[in-house]
Amino acid sequence: MSKKTINADKEKDFSKWFTEINQKAELSDLRYNVKGFIVFQPWSVLAMEKMFHFMEKTLQKKQHKPYYFPTLIPESNLKLESSHVKGFTPEVFWVTEHGNKEKFEEKLALRPTSETAFYKMFSTWIRSYNDLPFKTYQRANVFRYETKATRPFLRSCEFHWIESHCAFATEEEALQQVKQDMETTKEVLHDIFCIPFIFFERPAWDKFAGADSTYAADVLNPDGKVIQQPSTHLLGTHFSKAFNVKFKDKDGKDKYCYLTCYGPAISRIFASVVAVHGDNKGLKFPWKIAPVQIVIVPIPSEKDEKVIRKAEELKQILEEQDISVEIDKTEATPGEKFYFWEMKGVPLRLELGPKEIKNKELTIFRRDNDKKSKIKEKELLKFIEKNSTAIDNNLRKNADSLFKNKIINAKTKKEIKKVIEQGKIARCSFCSISKDGEKCAEYIEKESSAKVRGTSLEKEKVSGKCVICNKKANEVIYIARDY
Amino acid sequence: MSKKTINADKEKDFSKWFTEINQKAELSDLRYNVKGFIVFQPWSVLAMEKMFHFMEKTLQKKQHKPYYFPTLIPESNLKLESSHVKGFTPEVFWVTEHGNKEKFEEKLALRPTSETAFYKMFSTWIRSYNDLPFKTYQRANVFRYETKATRPFLRSCEFHWIESHCAFATEEEALQQVKQDMETTKEVLHDIFCIPFIFFERPAWDKFAGADSTYAADVLNPDGKVIQQPSTHLLGTHFSKAFNVKFKDKDGKDKYCYLTCYGPAISRIFASVVAVHGDNKGLKFPWKIAPVQIVIVPIPSEKDEKVIRKAEELKQILEEQDISVEIDKTEATPGEKFYFWEMKGVPLRLELGPKEIKNKELTIFRRDNDKKSKIKEKELLKFIEKNSTAIDNNLRKNADSLFKNKIINAKTKKEIKKVIEQGKIARCSFCSISKDGEKCAEYIEKESSAKVRGTSLEKEKVSGKCVICNKKANEVIYIARDY
Repeated sequence: MSKKTINADKEKDFSKWFTEINQKAELSDLRYNVKGFIVFQPWSVLAMEKMFHFMEKTLQKKQHKPYYFPTLIPESNLKLESSHVKGFTPEVFWVTEHGNKEKFEEKLALRPTSETAFYKMFSTWIRSYNDLPFKTYQRANVFRYETKATRPFLRSCEFHWIESHCAFATEEEALQQVKQDMETTKEVLHDIFCIPFIFFERPAWDKFAGADSTYAADVLNPDGKVIQQPSTHLLGTHFSKAFNVKFKDKDGKDKYCYLTCYGPAISRIFASVVAVHGDNKGLKFPWKIAPVQIVIVPIPSEKDEKVIRKAEELKQILEEQDISVEIDKTEATPGEKFYFWEMKGVPLRLELGPKEIKNKELTIFRRDNDKKSKIKEKELLKFIEKNSTAIDNNLRKNADSLFKNKIINAKTKKEIKKVIEQGKIARCSFCSISKDGEKCAEYIEKESSAKVRGTSLEKEKVSGKCVICNKKANEVIYIARDY
Repeated sequence: MSKKTINADKEKDFSKWFTEINQKAELSDLRYNVKGFIVFQPWSVLAMEKMFHFMEKTLQKKQHKPYYFPTLIPESNLKLESSHVKGFTPEVFWVTEHGNKEKFEEKLALRPTSETAFYKMFSTWIRSYNDLPFKTYQRANVFRYETKATRPFLRSCEFHWIESHCAFATEEEALQQVKQDMETTKEVLHDIFCIPFIFFERPAWDKFAGADSTYAADVLNPDGKVIQQPSTHLLGTHFSKAFNVKFKDKDGKDKYCYLTCYGPAISRIFASVVAVHGDNKGLKFPWKIAPVQIVIVPIPSEKDEKVIRKAEELKQILEEQDISVEIDKTEATPGEKFYFWEMKGVPLRLELGPKEIKNKELTIFRRDNDKKSKIKEKELLKFIEKNSTAIDNNLRKNADSLFKNKIINAKTKKEIKKVIEQGKIARCSFCSISKDGEKCAEYIEKESSAKVRGTSLEKEKVSGKCVICNKKANEVIYIARDY
């Protein structure tokens, strides 16, 4: 047995499991000497690069154009929209000087998010209705000062994301964009990364600083806590008024643009890839985003030149099909190698020995369902084509059914508490997600350390009374603990 | 004639031409409200993304592993290597506080380059000879305070690059890495981006802060100035001693690693793509890095539904081959569209009207050589396959021959001055590129406002005396003006 397998039990102590897998699979290193900052290591970066690729391609297909904006935002920009500055100021890192203690006249923020950089330029670029819709995005690193303990991928002061900013002539088009952002989230997170989620409209007290409404995807972790993943925001005309983002309409009149923003945080979504698919042997990567998709393990050892030559030959054939391949030429035993690469989550393992070569056969192991197959060598590419889809379908199906079973209806305060303590999501009737409901939400948070996540965007039948205040129920809400 | 064509003459006033093409092709916007920072716009970002892709793929093939390191580096890290801190401190942006004026105990630098972040972690990660070679890279944005005027892509306070950091057991292996970095530069910059350059060993007085020796690729601009493109550095054991990067060797002894670093600055290389290939009609992109590779122009107008349908159909066929395509559906005249897309540098233009559809023919225009061809529609993919290579070969050949003709032997001080004033590179005998030669280099700089770039890495026959001091010549050096 290899030392590399995981000791913690994912179901019983998720937090310990997550810490252990992060360290053993070398996903990120917390020992960098600035508090709250981590180093993302190759095994996570290779996967995140693929994740960026799929998200960016999808946005480009929907006519978003890519930009690189400056990392620094002047304090005066940040101050233009009052609730935005209030929401973000506590988290800002400030650049105040350069060189040998030479002060800047104005403090410069490391972007916590880039509304106040983009919209400053929107006011320069957008002139007439012909310029609309104006759809952008950038891949960027953003910075938020954190007082809570660092957690790899989930909470660190610098993270890697995509932010998309769009301007429209009408509120209706802006709303359509928000819906498109949700579809994009489904196409990428669910269909490619195999991660289930629910999109919620957030309650009034939990909106993005400066938004009319906020819609966010919550993913469930095995420990019963949810992680907020991509959110998309209807900003209305708050920012366009603050930044003077106007256009001359067909009727010759100057009008303010309706703005939206969307922020899929790739390094945070990576945490959900780990949490949702992994098991007690380690990681399980969906095919399309696996850092290495196939590992070839020479048997009995790397010293058989013929086996290594065959392995190199297969590697080349596979790489020509754009498949990521690694040959394990280390001095470990085959058994150790098996454990190691299962822990690393590589979807397919190809075992190759003199016997396989003689019979022109291959032994292939699937990480997702533990199944071994013997196939003819010439059938390799066909096998991969079929099984790569099957792997993703299987991971997605398992994740979907697990998620679905964790949502439990709760009819009383007691039931809410019980559901939450079981590590599940409570669904119940509620008075209101506008300001009026905040008191009831505070009660829930105090009693269960759980939050009202909002209302699902699928129309749900509401009946009866608010579980907390007993007034007429107007919403069905979901309650969960979060990070 | 369209308003969009370029007024400045590239040969006569390169600087004006560069400014004009940057603005008209919407490559970057200098109006962002932090001095020295620019916004990179979609037309450059799409090309730079492709450039990053080729550079990263090449590094990965050579066993470099990708990381994302923190942007912030503590002042104490920066101070560990004395010549490094001296070289970079004047250019550093400092983060000194967070939130509401809460001071950090230690100032944090926005990375001007990441040696002092990587090597800090190298000392944690590298334990034994088994861990070596240790080859890394990261795609990152870096920051250097600038007092000189901002020039798009060439000089701004934040730029986008790749930095590769490697550790080796021996000096010989480190030297091999530096040579591999130069090959990588050739494979990517010359073979794919079609940019000629010479790799120079820099004189002792022009080395990277903290390096034993520096090798850098100089690209020639039409105005006779050179731009330093990727440089690679033999760092010896300076940094490994400062950061305690040691390994236990096979003989059981602790030894310091030999380090190298390599920094291809993609956003700066983009400037050379613009400068080297463009002409008085605008940009010319090499096929593989063109933001859009084929533009389809419907003729006579976008209102013919059949033409648009055909255009969409062709677009889909081409996109399945991973070709970037755009259909120009704007209301401009075909002539205006032609000028516009030529200015934007799109390699191929497909003209499509009812006549073409009826005859199952296509008219294709090549931007690089102004040639129009009529082909059968079914031959489209074959035509593209052949011509995409031909376009790049043609651009590369033209650039190579122009470059070669700009290098002129100079035998006297007067000749150096003349060659430099003609906007060329002077090649001459010289005493030394170690510290001894600095006085002669200073003389050249004073007389001609030009710098000694160093010695070419191809062995050159040295004879006679130093053109400046008349002592015995030991080197053949190259002199040019730079940015």
